[in-house]
Amino acid sequence: MNGAHALLATLGANDVSVCFSNPGTTEMHFVAALDDAPGMRGILCLFEGVATGAADGYARVKGTPAATLMHLGPGLANGWANLHNARRAHVPVLNVVGDHATYHSRFDAPLQSNIELLADALEGWYRRTTSSDQLARDAADAVAGAFGPPGRVATLVLPADVSWSDVGAVPAAWPRADRPSSLAIDETTFERALKALRTKRCTVFLGGSALSKEQLRLAQSVASTTSSRFMMETFATKMDRGAGVASPERLIYLSEFAVDQLKESEAIILLGSREPVGFFAYPNVPSRLAPEGCDIIDLAPPGSDTLGALQSLVEALHAPLVPIERGEPAARPTGELTTHSFSAAVGATLKEGLIVVDESITSGIQLFGATRFAPDHQWMTLTGGAIGYGLPVALGAAVASKQRVLALESDGSMMYTLQALWTMAREGLDVTVVGLSNRSYAVLNVELTRVGAVPDGAASARMLELDDPTLDLSQLASAQGVPGVRVTSADELVLALERSYATPGPMFIEAMLPKGLR
Amino acid sequence: MNGAHALLATLGANDVSVCFSNPGTTEMHFVAALDDAPGMRGILCLFEGVATGAADGYARVKGTPAATLMHLGPGLANGWANLHNARRAHVPVLNVVGDHATYHSRFDAPLQSNIELLADALEGWYRRTTSSDQLARDAADAVAGAFGPPGRVATLVLPADVSWSDVGAVPAAWPRADRPSSLAIDETTFERALKALRTKRCTVFLGGSALSKEQLRLAQSVASTTSSRFMMETFATKMDRGAGVASPERLIYLSEFAVDQLKESEAIILLGSREPVGFFAYPNVPSRLAPEGCDIIDLAPPGSDTLGALQSLVEALHAPLVPIERGEPAARPTGELTTHSFSAAVGATLKEGLIVVDESITSGIQLFGATRFAPDHQWMTLTGGAIGYGLPVALGAAVASKQRVLALESDGSMMYTLQALWTMAREGLDVTVVGLSNRSYAVLNVELTRVGAVPDGAASARMLELDDPTLDLSQLASAQGVPGVRVTSADELVLALERSYATPGPMFIEAMLPKGLR
Repeated sequence: MNGAHALLATLGANDVSVCFSNPGTTEMHFVAALDDAPGMRGILCLFEGVATGAADGYARVKGTPAATLMHLGPGLANGWANLHNARRAHVPVLNVVGDHATYHSRFDAPLQSNIELLADALEGWYRRTTSSDQLARDAADAVAGAFGPPGRVATLVLPADVSWSDVGAVPAAWPRADRPSSLAIDETTFERALKALRTKRCTVFLGGSALSKEQLRLAQSVASTTSSRFMMETFATKMDRGAGVASPERLIYLSEFAVDQLKESEAIILLGSREPVGFFAYPNVPSRLAPEGCDIIDLAPPGSDTLGALQSLVEALHAPLVPIERGEPAARPTGELTTHSFSAAVGATLKEGLIVVDESITSGIQLFGATRFAPDHQWMTLTGGAIGYGLPVALGAAVASKQRVLALESDGSMMYTLQALWTMAREGLDVTVVGLSNRSYAVLNVELTRVGAVPDGAASARMLELDDPTLDLSQLASAQGVPGVRVTSADELVLALERSYATPGPMFIEAMLPKGLR
Repeated sequence: MNGAHALLATLGANDVSVCFSNPGTTEMHFVAALDDAPGMRGILCLFEGVATGAADGYARVKGTPAATLMHLGPGLANGWANLHNARRAHVPVLNVVGDHATYHSRFDAPLQSNIELLADALEGWYRRTTSSDQLARDAADAVAGAFGPPGRVATLVLPADVSWSDVGAVPAAWPRADRPSSLAIDETTFERALKALRTKRCTVFLGGSALSKEQLRLAQSVASTTSSRFMMETFATKMDRGAGVASPERLIYLSEFAVDQLKESEAIILLGSREPVGFFAYPNVPSRLAPEGCDIIDLAPPGSDTLGALQSLVEALHAPLVPIERGEPAARPTGELTTHSFSAAVGATLKEGLIVVDESITSGIQLFGATRFAPDHQWMTLTGGAIGYGLPVALGAAVASKQRVLALESDGSMMYTLQALWTMAREGLDVTVVGLSNRSYAVLNVELTRVGAVPDGAASARMLELDDPTLDLSQLASAQGVPGVRVTSADELVLALERSYATPGPMFIEAMLPKGLR
């Protein structure tokens, strides 16, 4: 038994059963050891950003970490952007980064680099293991490191010789890291929140792990009983939505409008979310979105017992459950394919249990409204702002769940990590991808104006438009083994969505929208 | 005039005339300022790893830096792997990384991260500029930082408000960083080298900037006069090759064989290269490839005056120029398409002045031999081991040169940065890409055995094979606007190569090789 075997045995003992992998030479013993670890499912990814995003998506569904397998510093760097998103999602991820043999590092071979700096920038858990006998312990610690709470990115660097060296003494049982309880709620803060709810104009502001159906119902009751505003953060890790779910008002991405949403608040009570701040700075728009003097009460920070906090609030306030707003699902759209009819098509066809991974950016502005009264489903968004998260997260969510995943992907965003499509085909995953072709970084045309930049020529326009040449998104999918179709009307999109839901395996639907932001 | 204008003016004054860009919101003023900077060519890339690899390729051709434009930490991370390769290539690259406004950073907005750690891991030059009045000076310092010598990766972090703030006083002239001279050769080391050449069994070992036609000729004379071995590093940044160029023996990638190549050396004289070490560690193979007791004489480290050192050696040794070995170019192959006939097809069709970017990995094992007596050309390789360098470097080389570029790409490697194809189409660049389809990480099948891993099942095999599903490489190209053809015989490959050389703009040739390593 070598180090790699011990590592895989420990991961197995800790219920880490999937490894999204992009291995190289230093990881070959890990790869070979997969043959002796039937409990570990190795899933090959053609780019590390796919592997890390998939681990994020997996953790969003399961709440437990998947492993990734990457190759030295450049491998971790390639996976870094989606790890940044996972960090902001507060989900557990366990990276195994192969490295040169311990004795080889000092020779500064071509692939040598400072992996620790890259890992440190993820602000999670980091360790470099140095012996095959210590590896099982280090792996269990890494699992614990990933769990947090809140969930974090844990990076275990595995030198090649630790992987290939024999284990001296095989333990009777592999070390385990138990899944920790949520952090307890601070009583003083609870009392402060309670008092604010009773005496001030409050906003009950949810995010992170507080967006389950049960918690949304409780929070709605608290807000209703205390005449508070019932809101949620802009970019949720995962939330329950649909006709049967209480629906908070979503903080608007545009700071100008978000400030307006919050301007009456004398206190904001945070549950699972951090204080709302501007996604970017804009000239003459404040970074803090809450009004001056507003009391920010951090009742249940990420990783803490948001459900317990809400239950205690309901109890203390004797808040009765209030009925969930009723409404009609979107009607099936016909005719021209626009951002509006695209959203309606998603809303009208949405099936119960579907997991939506939303990276539709400007094309999806009407999605939340159009799906409000659809059958109950889950919704995931881009938590860290590093685009290229959607396809990988959809891949990981589909591995973790028996439910179909619907990935809504802008063309510009999709191009960062399009290699995820190949793994979807390889693993036969039930993923529907809608590739939204508007041939533009449309959001940047908006942002250009918002930040007050004054373009006056073709050079700047050429940095924002994707229409020369036009990308053939469905061909990019079919070239990777995912059946691709192109739709040019709302009717076709409705039919294609319904067909994909009825057909096992992945399908790619290229939706031809008007160019740019329309 | 705002900071962005001052930055672009300074870059212009320093002859930085190309910016490979993947901008976001924080870079919008930079983008708008491109309209007022006719001397700066903005080239849009759909992924940051394309932008950074292109800057590497550009610098390999020109010797001067291109700029990149990236979006906060995740943008730099996405570009990091190809910056690692550029670092190992010792070429100058100038990153402009947009960041949140100075006053916004403390709010830890979703895209906030520690950019400095990511940049530090590149071991080059780093600065965060903090005022629009200081920006021009910082930019000139960044140019100087990139030049080294040796060439380095310089990263200038540009907060959004520095970009959009007005410049107080516009200087009469923008600050300039002159291109520095090479580092002088140490006289004591020179004398040591000279003595060793006269008294010991030596290897004259070239790399980096020492691989020009002129220097190879001089080095060959030195080696011949002193009965030394005439060798070069395995992975060269750029080298002159062909019938008119002296040809050193290339250090073999496989350490087992490299040790054998060097075993008679009593001294190794390094020019532009570092001491040869194993690319990876392998059980029972030494990391240092030179024999024990061998005198390693670092005559001209990267960044130093390799030409001057060689001229001085020739003079001191009275070394006569020796004739360059003569031979026949490869014959046009026919019949089955194999790694052998692929290499012959490249050698038989190669045109004078062509720039070859080689990321063919196992499929290209016979390339060096097959092109030895082709018309004079240039050759670039993967200096840092981070795969996915080929298409971006080819893109940048084509922007920098009037010569056609031939990129030889393995299927596995190509999938890391395939978005480069779109920019090739957009810019109408004269690049021929041969996509080598062997449906396998063939090199890892070799490495698996070399490191002594013992696979015994399907799970490990599935981490190394790319044939389920098969990637349609030519379709991936045509979907991005690059005309793609598929060839299945050596004859077809020869014709396709010749047709591409005669046709302006990019062309993609998918070469269907036998599966795996054959």
